[in-house]
Amino acid sequence: MKPEETIDFHIRWAWSKISKAYNNEAAKNGGTMAIGYVLLNIDKDGTPSTKLGPRMGMEPTSLSRILKSMEDLKLIKRIPDKNDKRIVKVTLTSKGIEMREVSKNVVIRFNSLVSENIEQKKLETCFEVLQQINMLLETNIFEDQTIRVN
Amino acid sequence: MKPEETIDFHIRWAWSKISKAYNNEAAKNGGTMAIGYVLLNIDKDGTPSTKLGPRMGMEPTSLSRILKSMEDLKLIKRIPDKNDKRIVKVTLTSKGIEMREVSKNVVIRFNSLVSENIEQKKLETCFEVLQQINMLLETNIFEDQTIRVN
Repeated sequence: MKPEETIDFHIRWAWSKISKAYNNEAAKNGGTMAIGYVLLNIDKDGTPSTKLGPRMGMEPTSLSRILKSMEDLKLIKRIPDKNDKRIVKVTLTSKGIEMREVSKNVVIRFNSLVSENIEQKKLETCFEVLQQINMLLETNIFEDQTIRVN
Repeated sequence: MKPEETIDFHIRWAWSKISKAYNNEAAKNGGTMAIGYVLLNIDKDGTPSTKLGPRMGMEPTSLSRILKSMEDLKLIKRIPDKNDKRIVKVTLTSKGIEMREVSKNVVIRFNSLVSENIEQKKLETCFEVLQQINMLLETNIFEDQTIRVN
């Protein structure tokens, strides 16, 4: 089995290129792709920090490291809830709102380029295959090879 | 545009799940996905270190860090070329050869599962779309929006 024949090779390659392009673009605005991704996941009226991790599939330690750097860049504020101080709400500053808009435009530009150049039907099949792969990976494929998703 | 409607969302999600599964599996053997990936890219009779980076799309600093850790784990040896000492050949130890086989089996198992569960025709369309995306990203899409790949 040559690497070019494996699905993971193609997905890895595509993701590595997309993240390079996104990081290049983010660097122009003093950010990173990861920061842009977090910005896009914070609602306009703020989001409890406990909701952010699961929403983005990010580990708590990675998330708290990135929130710290976003606070340093004055993109977000972490505000404890008035009623329950264990809950911290992440809110965007005006600079954060601006950068969120920039991130959004980068994602829209990339996806428009893809839609303009790739047949919609093929794109939908690709979405479907990637979702099926995600479902296959929900089962621990290496632990128990008898479990199969249809 | 919702995240689920963007192609980058699906590719990111799939890659994140694949790399988690690969890392879990590698951890059982005292390795990481990145180590497995390097092992698979070293030829049986060794590969010059300068060829490895481009082959894997890896930056020189990341590559040399990982080669160092693989040397510590006694998976590889770095041997200077007899004729040109600037050239260093990366060769597998017997432990490295064994772990290369383990890595190969993990990749084969995952790809077999995918082939068994997803229609071949759809899978091929997905490969094609991912390749088209890679081609689109060859042009610097954010620098010059007038360049288009057909």
